[in-house]
Amino acid sequence: MTQVESARAGITTPQMASVAAAEKRDTDFIRRGVDDGTIVIPANRLREISSVCGVGAGLRTKVNANIGSSPDRAVLEEEYAKLRAACDAGADAVMDLSVGGDIDLIRRKILDESNVPVGSVPLYDAAVQAVESGKSVVQMTASEMIAAFEKHARDGIDFFVVHCGVTRESVQRLRNDKRLAQIVSRGGAFAVEWMLYNDAENPLYERFDEILDIAKEYDVTLSLGDGMRPGCLADATDRCQVQELLIQGELTDRARAAGVQVMIEGPGHMPLDQIEMNVKLEKAICKGAPFYVLGPLVTDVALGYDHISAAIGGAIAAAAGADFLCYVTPSEHLALPAVQDVKAGVIATRIAAHAGDIAKGVPGAREWDDSLAAHRRARRWEEQMRLAIDPETARQYRSGSMPLVEDVCTMCGKYCSMKGVEEFL
Amino acid sequence: MTQVESARAGITTPQMASVAAAEKRDTDFIRRGVDDGTIVIPANRLREISSVCGVGAGLRTKVNANIGSSPDRAVLEEEYAKLRAACDAGADAVMDLSVGGDIDLIRRKILDESNVPVGSVPLYDAAVQAVESGKSVVQMTASEMIAAFEKHARDGIDFFVVHCGVTRESVQRLRNDKRLAQIVSRGGAFAVEWMLYNDAENPLYERFDEILDIAKEYDVTLSLGDGMRPGCLADATDRCQVQELLIQGELTDRARAAGVQVMIEGPGHMPLDQIEMNVKLEKAICKGAPFYVLGPLVTDVALGYDHISAAIGGAIAAAAGADFLCYVTPSEHLALPAVQDVKAGVIATRIAAHAGDIAKGVPGAREWDDSLAAHRRARRWEEQMRLAIDPETARQYRSGSMPLVEDVCTMCGKYCSMKGVEEFL
Repeated sequence: MTQVESARAGITTPQMASVAAAEKRDTDFIRRGVDDGTIVIPANRLREISSVCGVGAGLRTKVNANIGSSPDRAVLEEEYAKLRAACDAGADAVMDLSVGGDIDLIRRKILDESNVPVGSVPLYDAAVQAVESGKSVVQMTASEMIAAFEKHARDGIDFFVVHCGVTRESVQRLRNDKRLAQIVSRGGAFAVEWMLYNDAENPLYERFDEILDIAKEYDVTLSLGDGMRPGCLADATDRCQVQELLIQGELTDRARAAGVQVMIEGPGHMPLDQIEMNVKLEKAICKGAPFYVLGPLVTDVALGYDHISAAIGGAIAAAAGADFLCYVTPSEHLALPAVQDVKAGVIATRIAAHAGDIAKGVPGAREWDDSLAAHRRARRWEEQMRLAIDPETARQYRSGSMPLVEDVCTMCGKYCSMKGVEEFL
Repeated sequence: MTQVESARAGITTPQMASVAAAEKRDTDFIRRGVDDGTIVIPANRLREISSVCGVGAGLRTKVNANIGSSPDRAVLEEEYAKLRAACDAGADAVMDLSVGGDIDLIRRKILDESNVPVGSVPLYDAAVQAVESGKSVVQMTASEMIAAFEKHARDGIDFFVVHCGVTRESVQRLRNDKRLAQIVSRGGAFAVEWMLYNDAENPLYERFDEILDIAKEYDVTLSLGDGMRPGCLADATDRCQVQELLIQGELTDRARAAGVQVMIEGPGHMPLDQIEMNVKLEKAICKGAPFYVLGPLVTDVALGYDHISAAIGGAIAAAAGADFLCYVTPSEHLALPAVQDVKAGVIATRIAAHAGDIAKGVPGAREWDDSLAAHRRARRWEEQMRLAIDPETARQYRSGSMPLVEDVCTMCGKYCSMKGVEEFL
């Protein structure tokens, strides 16, 4: 049985028990969430994950780190280093988005090494195989696409992206409504290019039942991709994006009916005053399915600092109910992320997720802040360092600037306000 | 005449004209804003500022960088370097918060060198002078406090902080309502310590008229300090904080009646779902006076990354109507910021301010993003670099990872979605 089928049969799986323990919720709460589709637990039947990760309503907002090679840089050791950096920094999941080098090898090695759920985009694999066999992306066959999903499921992938909301209908919406940045989703672009070249419907949509069969067999969680996600503020919440969401909503129903877990991918670039509305729209259209957002980036101009642009949007999204934040690194829009970018991206996104969790009242979220604040007031530095979101960086700052008076810091030195007031109050 | 008096007489000052030109608004709009107190233009009568800065409703959200020495680190050349770093990164104003070394010299040198408005906290000066003359902070006299305001105004300071909302009334609120972090404002701490030790009312409140006289003579803008600002999430929007705001509101009326420009300082540490409400509360209580916020920080655990925590809060505050964001650097709570921290803080805060401006519809804000997005789609890299919020960093990322195919980047390489779709759509 899949997680969903177990939940419906009233059975608490080991994965549900792990999530319940990690979240300090009772197992019934988790089981009911998996049953009604508001919680997913990406966990391929073939794989043992030591850090099982629940994503959805009432749970801590999770953080995903995208790693993987590109045609311009494909070094297996670097991908290992990124995986380690992501996990050390506290990522809850990683996605291998490799499109360069021996991508089968990279995927399988990452699966071997990772203690957290691993996601992938099988469509990339099919596209790369087509190109490497001398064809172009648009000449891959529908069967090759489906075969890639089967391969990834067999490899143990825990969740995979299906760009099935990009249909001829959504392409027509794109034609009717000029976009500034057109399509910025790699999978969305492959699907649209394929449809236009072949003058045919998207096979991932037409053959969605076959993908459901594969997902069910291996209990892979579907992540319904947002091929039409806005790639700049000007394109946010346009008719293409919302058209795709409607299709994602229908396919959510079908996945749930088939006993397959499903979450929804979302934007993208978006003015911050549209974010809350977009989260609520997704929850309504997709009947509470977990929302997995990329950013959102609240400005297009923060090149080299897009982790900050995304942290702003991600915090607002998480507070409004988004369940899963895909990180954005400082190198976004400029280069394949390096190891230090992975760390910077994960930390920034964790700050956003945690800020959102405080606002939406995830049980236990605020306790962390309150503990740290108590240590700060008492000027217990070692305890502050230990509780910091990234103890290593916090320690570097402190040890690089030690105060003359031991229990304060060099910002105010002997004029420390907390210490001063303590004497008189 | 002060700026306010000129505005009331229907006179457009050169400063109003500069602000109008910089903001692409007509001069009447600026003059009316100065008249009704929803816009301030910090500009000491004795000083020529090449980058005059308007702060308030309908204008671009401004960014302030705090620089200055501490008892643990007081090097004049470093303060110059921080000033340059702040201005190069695009700060609209700086504050000299020096409390170490020859603070008169540092302040005067910064005033000489700065092309942007300079703010200060004269109370620090009085406290430091007291300590250096062998007394303690609480032994400074009321007249010494007032004299410090006079000295700073004569030196040319454009805006100064008055911790006049911390009164015996607000201290009583503090006693009635236990706080986790007590007082974290340096000036607030000095004022509270002084009141408790001397068992007397805060002289900055009692002798507010004298400060108004000084401010009026030199046309210094008042920044009504938030000595009771919450220093952790647990203390946000508590009765001490709101009590101080009520007093700030009354003093705003008095400043306006005296023909003195005034803005209000605000939190602080704050769960993100309380930020919008706090901005609206300030606007209501202080009758539209510009709101100058420090952060707000949306979590207490981001040591070493508080510029990101503050960027999240600052963006939400700016979107809700905050007018002026005081930066927070990565070294906040850990150390006096170094030059690189100043740059990181300014850029993060500018991202927040700009994201807020887009959301609140500041005229022209979105054009920047749309231009950059158009260049991005067309893969015009030099134009993208030029428009980036920090061209230097953007160029470093790009030049450090040049793609095999010139017009794309190493993230997707030859699989660039924008380029791929262009061929078919």
